[in-house]
Amino acid sequence: MKAVTVTPRTAGSSELAEVPEPDESEGSVLVETLAVGVCGTDMEIVRGDYGWAPPGHDRLVLGHESIGRVLDAPSASGLAAGDLVVGIVRRPDPVPCYSCAAGEWDACRNGQYTEHGIKQLDGFMRERWRAAPDAMVSVDPGLGRLGVLLEPTTVVAKAWEEIERIGGRQTWQPKTALVVGAGPIGLLAALLGVERGLEVHVVDQMESGLKPDLVHALGATYHTGRLSGVLAGPDVVIECTGVPRLVFDAASAVGVGGVVCLTGVSPTGVRVDTDGGSLARSMVLGNTCVVGSVNANARHYRAGADALARADRDWLSRLVTRSVPLDRFSDAFEHGPEDVKVVLELAR
Amino acid sequence: MKAVTVTPRTAGSSELAEVPEPDESEGSVLVETLAVGVCGTDMEIVRGDYGWAPPGHDRLVLGHESIGRVLDAPSASGLAAGDLVVGIVRRPDPVPCYSCAAGEWDACRNGQYTEHGIKQLDGFMRERWRAAPDAMVSVDPGLGRLGVLLEPTTVVAKAWEEIERIGGRQTWQPKTALVVGAGPIGLLAALLGVERGLEVHVVDQMESGLKPDLVHALGATYHTGRLSGVLAGPDVVIECTGVPRLVFDAASAVGVGGVVCLTGVSPTGVRVDTDGGSLARSMVLGNTCVVGSVNANARHYRAGADALARADRDWLSRLVTRSVPLDRFSDAFEHGPEDVKVVLELAR
Repeated sequence: MKAVTVTPRTAGSSELAEVPEPDESEGSVLVETLAVGVCGTDMEIVRGDYGWAPPGHDRLVLGHESIGRVLDAPSASGLAAGDLVVGIVRRPDPVPCYSCAAGEWDACRNGQYTEHGIKQLDGFMRERWRAAPDAMVSVDPGLGRLGVLLEPTTVVAKAWEEIERIGGRQTWQPKTALVVGAGPIGLLAALLGVERGLEVHVVDQMESGLKPDLVHALGATYHTGRLSGVLAGPDVVIECTGVPRLVFDAASAVGVGGVVCLTGVSPTGVRVDTDGGSLARSMVLGNTCVVGSVNANARHYRAGADALARADRDWLSRLVTRSVPLDRFSDAFEHGPEDVKVVLELAR
Repeated sequence: MKAVTVTPRTAGSSELAEVPEPDESEGSVLVETLAVGVCGTDMEIVRGDYGWAPPGHDRLVLGHESIGRVLDAPSASGLAAGDLVVGIVRRPDPVPCYSCAAGEWDACRNGQYTEHGIKQLDGFMRERWRAAPDAMVSVDPGLGRLGVLLEPTTVVAKAWEEIERIGGRQTWQPKTALVVGAGPIGLLAALLGVERGLEVHVVDQMESGLKPDLVHALGATYHTGRLSGVLAGPDVVIECTGVPRLVFDAASAVGVGGVVCLTGVSPTGVRVDTDGGSLARSMVLGNTCVVGSVNANARHYRAGADALARADRDWLSRLVTRSVPLDRFSDAFEHGPEDVKVVLELAR
């Protein structure tokens, strides 16, 4: 069967390859891949900057944002042929650490976790894959192929869980949220904020076009320009760009008692010169919090699936700005200025 | 009666003044002040850098770290003459905001709170004061005048509560804590860490003397030098200096899934040049959190009183490095290199 594979840490090594059918040792549920989304991590891997092949192998099958259809499943699995499922990206470390033992592999303590399409496990850019029933999550059949948006939604479902648990360490009645960046993560973060009844503001660079339109369609407010000028003291700030300067601006922009959640993976070696005294003082006197959030566990997959099931299907479909057939896979790794989410199509 | 007063924002204005007896409108419980501790905020006020007099007044009675003895209390108050009490520093704003309404004035949302000896309420450096029964906390009679350490202990009791509630947003089994700074706040933070059964490390500049001795006496480990070299990936970091460079080092030093609590009030306008990309990336990939914590509410006074009641009395008494009689009050505002906590004595 066909798969998009790469030799990790080797730029220009991605290719459409012939690979063996998934081995039964990978799990009892056989899934036909419908579509796989592309994100910044995939581009880092394709550029040769990131990624690990499975032990004993040179090449890694790419892809971690999946939607698939069950072809075969044991009856005890609770799954049946035809069910739509999304594979969970990260799997617990083999030790396991106490977080992985508790099913919180997103908080793995020893770094020995594995990740489909990223770290030591083949990904979902192949025609079929197998996994254990508890390594995948069902999505609402009505969502159809839009279930490909679940994996990025799990990232913001976790971010919102972190925000609410941290904010809720004391009495908390948040009203406003500022989202930095209107890419897929930012737009989905805004969606979940609106679903919570918050007044949501999104800031990005584009003056017009799809991103402002998608923000307005949510009932949120779109801004360009400096974070400090968007709104006074938001209760929540979700930073989705990873741009180091914006991370610091986000930490400074939050209101008294507020929570800043960082979801973007910043490049190392980018120096920031800042009034660190004022930032630290405002954090102490304002009881504010900055938390980093990565990945997601099964709880966040379920929360993300619920959030998508509640969302407007038309709005979700507009997030997918391009669908690329498998034989032109390399087009999916080109990111245009109007692209939000680009999806590789494997089957209809 | 005598009181140490100051004209806020006027350097050199502190003096031992004659002031009226506390008015009954200040509360039904009359308290004789035994001793008042001096901290960095008092020094800021004495230097003319901070502080607000009560509305309609030019001068403010200083002092917020108190220990007193009840002289008179209504029977319904639950207090009786002779009880040892500590006045709660911050009082709710008059609106009140939703945090103050819930008794969480330490998290006041609108900044209209008041604070004895700091902001619009006379402090405890006067021979007698009055307050409502719920504006003070009883301390273990066995503690005696060491109850003067309760107010700084409430600051770290709140810090530990924040740390545990934030760390506990997911499965968490912390083992190690790094405390930055061995002043009163740092030493008390270390005490509460040891009481929790953690392996505690304290870092400060002094190579020898009382501070290392006090750390060792707790069963904790004392270090000098750079934070990054103290121990690998602590679960908890409590920053007690407010030095902006150390705040950033603390945020970088914490381990995967760890919590950094900032308790020091940093000076504004101190620029820090840092690899902001690496710091932000490590926070995201490590799910780490940095939280600022200021002040304390009644819950933290009770937790602090419990922590002091459990502590070794001899160790606590060694924190009080100087006791200054009221008529030499200005000596209490001179901080020597071997000073930990300096206390002004008002009555025996």
